[in-house]
Amino acid sequence: MNKLKDLIENRDTRSGALFDYLIQILIILSLLSFAVETLPDLSEKTISILEGFELICIVIFTAEYILRLIIADKALSYFKSFYGIIDLLAILPYYLFPMFDLRFIRAFRVFRIFRSLKLIRYNRALRRFKIAYNLIHEELILFFIFTTIILFFGAVGIYYFENPVQPQQFQSVIHSLYWAVVTLTTVGYGDIYPITDGGKIFTSIILVLGIGVITIPTGLIASALSKAREIEFEERGK
Amino acid sequence: MNKLKDLIENRDTRSGALFDYLIQILIILSLLSFAVETLPDLSEKTISILEGFELICIVIFTAEYILRLIIADKALSYFKSFYGIIDLLAILPYYLFPMFDLRFIRAFRVFRIFRSLKLIRYNRALRRFKIAYNLIHEELILFFIFTTIILFFGAVGIYYFENPVQPQQFQSVIHSLYWAVVTLTTVGYGDIYPITDGGKIFTSIILVLGIGVITIPTGLIASALSKAREIEFEERGK
Amino acid sequence: MNKLKDLIENRDTRSGALFDYLIQILIILSLLSFAVETLPDLSEKTISILEGFELICIVIFTAEYILRLIIADKALSYFKSFYGIIDLLAILPYYLFPMFDLRFIRAFRVFRIFRSLKLIRYNRALRRFKIAYNLIHEELILFFIFTTIILFFGAVGIYYFENPVQPQQFQSVIHSLYWAVVTLTTVGYGDIYPITDGGKIFTSIILVLGIGVITIPTGLIASALSKAREIEFEERGK
Amino acid sequence: MNKLKDLIENRDTRSGALFDYLIQILIILSLLSFAVETLPDLSEKTISILEGFELICIVIFTAEYILRLIIADKALSYFKSFYGIIDLLAILPYYLFPMFDLRFIRAFRVFRIFRSLKLIRYNRALRRFKIAYNLIHEELILFFIFTTIILFFGAVGIYYFENPVQPQQFQSVIHSLYWAVVTLTTVGYGDIYPITDGGKIFTSIILVLGIGVITIPTGLIASALSKAREIEFEERGK
Repeated sequence: MNKLKDLIENRDTRSGALFDYLIQILIILSLLSFAVETLPDLSEKTISILEGFELICIVIFTAEYILRLIIADKALSYFKSFYGIIDLLAILPYYLFPMFDLRFIRAFRVFRIFRSLKLIRYNRALRRFKIAYNLIHEELILFFIFTTIILFFGAVGIYYFENPVQPQQFQSVIHSLYWAVVTLTTVGYGDIYPITDGGKIFTSIILVLGIGVITIPTGLIASALSKAREIEFEERGK
Repeated sequence: MNKLKDLIENRDTRSGALFDYLIQILIILSLLSFAVETLPDLSEKTISILEGFELICIVIFTAEYILRLIIADKALSYFKSFYGIIDLLAILPYYLFPMFDLRFIRAFRVFRIFRSLKLIRYNRALRRFKIAYNLIHEELILFFIFTTIILFFGAVGIYYFENPVQPQQFQSVIHSLYWAVVTLTTVGYGDIYPITDGGKIFTSIILVLGIGVITIPTGLIASALSKAREIEFEERGK
Repeated sequence: MNKLKDLIENRDTRSGALFDYLIQILIILSLLSFAVETLPDLSEKTISILEGFELICIVIFTAEYILRLIIADKALSYFKSFYGIIDLLAILPYYLFPMFDLRFIRAFRVFRIFRSLKLIRYNRALRRFKIAYNLIHEELILFFIFTTIILFFGAVGIYYFENPVQPQQFQSVIHSLYWAVVTLTTVGYGDIYPITDGGKIFTSIILVLGIGVITIPTGLIASALSKAREIEFEERGK
Repeated sequence: MNKLKDLIENRDTRSGALFDYLIQILIILSLLSFAVETLPDLSEKTISILEGFELICIVIFTAEYILRLIIADKALSYFKSFYGIIDLLAILPYYLFPMFDLRFIRAFRVFRIFRSLKLIRYNRALRRFKIAYNLIHEELILFFIFTTIILFFGAVGIYYFENPVQPQQFQSVIHSLYWAVVTLTTVGYGDIYPITDGGKIFTSIILVLGIGVITIPTGLIASALSKAREIEFEERGK
């Protein structure tokens, strides 16, 4: 029993690390197989191979889930934990399939990859992320509020200028919000854009002033991570 | 009277904080209701609910405004302050509605959200913003001038290349400025773009050289905020 | 004569600063007037006003140019200096107009704005730019080479994938370079994009890998400017 | 023999530096000629000039390759080295042309430019790149994993919303990945975009949350390079 625990929960032992790598590879393969399954015009044979592989995955993931439940010190606390729910979502859709078409939830398997990041070498990097977050969480919240305000203000403004001439595109302030997001993140598909002179001037002004507000947090996070490395370095020096 | 003052102007007391949260929530709900109201094809019932809610908001905001006027040490200085004007703009359109259609000004309510940022915990972050601004305001002004010059130069250049073949799109240098903003902020809707070889070469050159000029301020602000945190930290250490 | 020199070349005296501001405002107004002149469907009256204003500008700029030539310690060295050439370009097109249509060169007046940046308060910021440039000029050159290589490589790759099916859009490697610039700067107008599966995969890969190469210099400059401020601060402390 | 070695492998001597510059210029000219050759509607004469120039390049590059093989301490280790392969790829296609159309591989000549970066003055900058990489390689790997997860998740989500109404555009999760890359790098050509309300909301959310994940590494690299310069400076100070 203890051996089993080492195998599944402990990544420091050799067999534990191996087990972890195998599960990891299986997750990635099952995600790829999920992506391939959505291709149109697959041959009968390919479909049956993919379905067979999915069955194997489900069997292994189910066995793993049951084992984790058994070896957990408190089965219920594992069942209710973030990874417990993700592990369940990875297999549940298959069993409920006859009743509901929930195959989609399989994509949540992608979150299982995070579990492996808890490996020792990334633990340090993840700890730096936490230090960085503590350094700048107030600024991040402020910029999140600024971003929301600028998106809302942009949506209202463009609605005012464009709705009268493009009622189909800028149907409401809510529809205009999609324009504000796509514009201020500089994606600019070109499916929705201003055509009035007022709208173009408004867009120009909000772009020049507002683009920074949305991209500053990125720079903040980068420099906070850089600072976090220094803090960690000083702490280790002590 | 003092109690009333504590309730409205002081966020340190429990009842003051509660009052502030309630007003805050009402502002957000009234902005959402404003956005929903612009949706086309709303049922009669939804419209009357939204109008009812707006009436409630107006009553509360008006009461709040009058109270703030009464409790202010100098009623006139509140009336002329930034928040005084914003508070007035939040209710005035309703009373002037029969005369002018100013419902639009309701969107300015969004600025009322800023008032809450003055809460103690964000005061520190806002102070850091000020330190950061003092550190780099000269650079920011220089980059603002550079941005203006590059946008103007881009507009003139593309007008020269594209106006002869696309007179409709690049009508004038002023119309080309819209192209310059949309291009150099990398939005690129695709509603206006160069089609001549000269215009494409000019666009390529101005993009490779000019894109940094517009995004450098963002990086500057991020690293100044990072520096401001260090300055604040040193000051507190003393 | 010395008084005249103070007026024109010296910005420390009150009259010198005033003269500088007036010329500055005239430059900006003449650029605006240049932009307005390109508008289609202007009334006869507007055109004659704009032409009148341009005549006034030319007279003042010419007088200024001649004065600068006279008061310069060495007239020839002013004539050959950067600002000497810019100042000449600002007026020359008018005198050559009957022979060639060079009105376009008027846009170069925009560079005259730089002269005012030499004011004392911006001198410090400009000096920091120089310190920053010295810190990172090797990295900047390397990234410029990387950018050129990635743009060339992107152009060759997309030409290989897309030319057979879109010979009109991806006519040659040189035409594909325009695609590479517009894509890797993330403008993406949508006038030219991959339609083959190979081209889409190639685009995805080159975007994920290459986008940083083009935007890293921006971050480098921002953090070098930040470092330059510290260096300046330490130097003043001594 | 030693003289020849100095000429080709040593850039410190004057003749070695000259040789290096000449080869460098030839590489750039041959790449330009390669790009020009792809232009449609070239005259007979231009084509024959370009082919002649290519022949000269091949002769020189072949001679250089053979000389490098001869002077190398171990011919085989040069043959198998990165630059050995690049040098071979630069000439091989010409000799195999009668059998296969491999002219395309000529574009790999662009990598030969890197060899010159090993010049002393860039050696220092390249060393800083290495220091910077060591500082942040854990963060870079983590962000690469985050980017992969967010792209996959974006692709699955948009497939779910858009496939039913745009089966041609969002054919499968794999096709949707192209959308995810083009959107999250903010290129946004406009060839593929959401049209359902659900898809637009999903796009807005993933853009606001996900855009940072893809651009943070850029900021990280910039600040690590800045840190690397400080480390180098301290080391030299010792």
